[in-house]
Amino acid sequence: MLYIVGIGPGPGYATERAIRAIEEADCVFYEDYTGPIDVETLRRAAKTPPIRLTRRDLEDESGRKVLECLREGKRAVLATAGDPMLATAHAALIAAARARGHPVEVVPGVSIICAAFSAACLSIYKLGGVATVTYPRGGVYSTRPYELAEANLARGLHTLLLLDVREDGSFMPPRDAAEVLMALEERERRGVFTPQRPAVVVHRLGWGGGVVVGPLGAVAKWDGEGPAVLIIPAQLGPVEKECLEAVAQRI
Amino acid sequence: MLYIVGIGPGPGYATERAIRAIEEADCVFYEDYTGPIDVETLRRAAKTPPIRLTRRDLEDESGRKVLECLREGKRAVLATAGDPMLATAHAALIAAARARGHPVEVVPGVSIICAAFSAACLSIYKLGGVATVTYPRGGVYSTRPYELAEANLARGLHTLLLLDVREDGSFMPPRDAAEVLMALEERERRGVFTPQRPAVVVHRLGWGGGVVVGPLGAVAKWDGEGPAVLIIPAQLGPVEKECLEAVAQRI
Repeated sequence: MLYIVGIGPGPGYATERAIRAIEEADCVFYEDYTGPIDVETLRRAAKTPPIRLTRRDLEDESGRKVLECLREGKRAVLATAGDPMLATAHAALIAAARARGHPVEVVPGVSIICAAFSAACLSIYKLGGVATVTYPRGGVYSTRPYELAEANLARGLHTLLLLDVREDGSFMPPRDAAEVLMALEERERRGVFTPQRPAVVVHRLGWGGGVVVGPLGAVAKWDGEGPAVLIIPAQLGPVEKECLEAVAQRI
Repeated sequence: MLYIVGIGPGPGYATERAIRAIEEADCVFYEDYTGPIDVETLRRAAKTPPIRLTRRDLEDESGRKVLECLREGKRAVLATAGDPMLATAHAALIAAARARGHPVEVVPGVSIICAAFSAACLSIYKLGGVATVTYPRGGVYSTRPYELAEANLARGLHTLLLLDVREDGSFMPPRDAAEVLMALEERERRGVFTPQRPAVVVHRLGWGGGVVVGPLGAVAKWDGEGPAVLIIPAQLGPVEKECLEAVAQRI
């Protein structure tokens, strides 16, 4: 039996179901390349020392180590930060395990995407889609955040932007994301990511962080660290506005 | 101090943070009109018997009972199913508490929206927005699900549909939702909600339910009960497809 378990965005966000699955597992694997995982909680709950899997283990080797544990008739857990199904590799592992006759259970966790909206008092009904802000690769910028935010602003919907993970596993800080977005504006020039564009930053959720709000130009100078997400809000409803002002720090 | 606490979609989904906030509260309130809440978990954790608030308490009376507890200098919890920030009334309560000088903390929970995508192996990156399927009021159908799904299908994005709550507090079953959507098709006739349109039903998550997949015409004849959500998927990626087939029951 394979359990794909999300333990939430930080300490204290694991659910009772997640803890139980980890406690009962013979092999506990985790990955920390999609988000920063609370390894202490894993260690406390697991019978055996948790084993870290790299992106290569899951993507290039298709989760071979996990499948080996299952083949011995054991219970395996693959634990991730947040909700477990953000990464395609995990969906591929589910399909591979099922194809070999192993039952699979997904244990949903607190997702950074839904939790960021919640923490910032924004209405999830107005989420118009998710994109990732990436560092330019070989000088090339991904324009997907620009196109998505442009379409969403026209439809009155909020855009959630996940931030890149660097090669060394560290997380893009919000200031770098703001720089990338404003660099996109320099190229595209349709007024989507100007320095005046309001942005909401939800940073280090569950790790002592919080919510800040301000124009992109101010985010580019703000020194908070990642992991973080950026939300580009459309026009706010009156209750959203009042509530956001109550919970966020203005920069 | 006011805590707005989500305890997830069903038993076992409460996080450690949620349990701690409930344990430490002097007054524990909950509402069950936005989703079915696991009252047993509240009772086990709370020092005092949890108090049920109706929609009227929160909307028409602006959470007066909660504010009274805060005014006495006590710690109050308002607990909800899923993630706590789905309802505008909760955001309004946060603003009201802050305006009276009370600090507020939101404790995000496992949201039905993110968890439904996770349970069905669908990529949250392809969530194009959320709408609610409502029973016709005075013979009038809300066309928002139709318009959103139409726009999303054209953009290759999935649409998440929440289902109505009846006046008596019971939840619209998936078969009624399929009937409403096909009735919309009869009026709009642009091929969005035909009986052949594939749909994913995530029902009674956390309460012994699961994931079923089939055309709307089959969902209209399926006897599973609510609470449930419907997802109208756009074209699936190969991994999404394989994983969905591994976790879902076909109808």
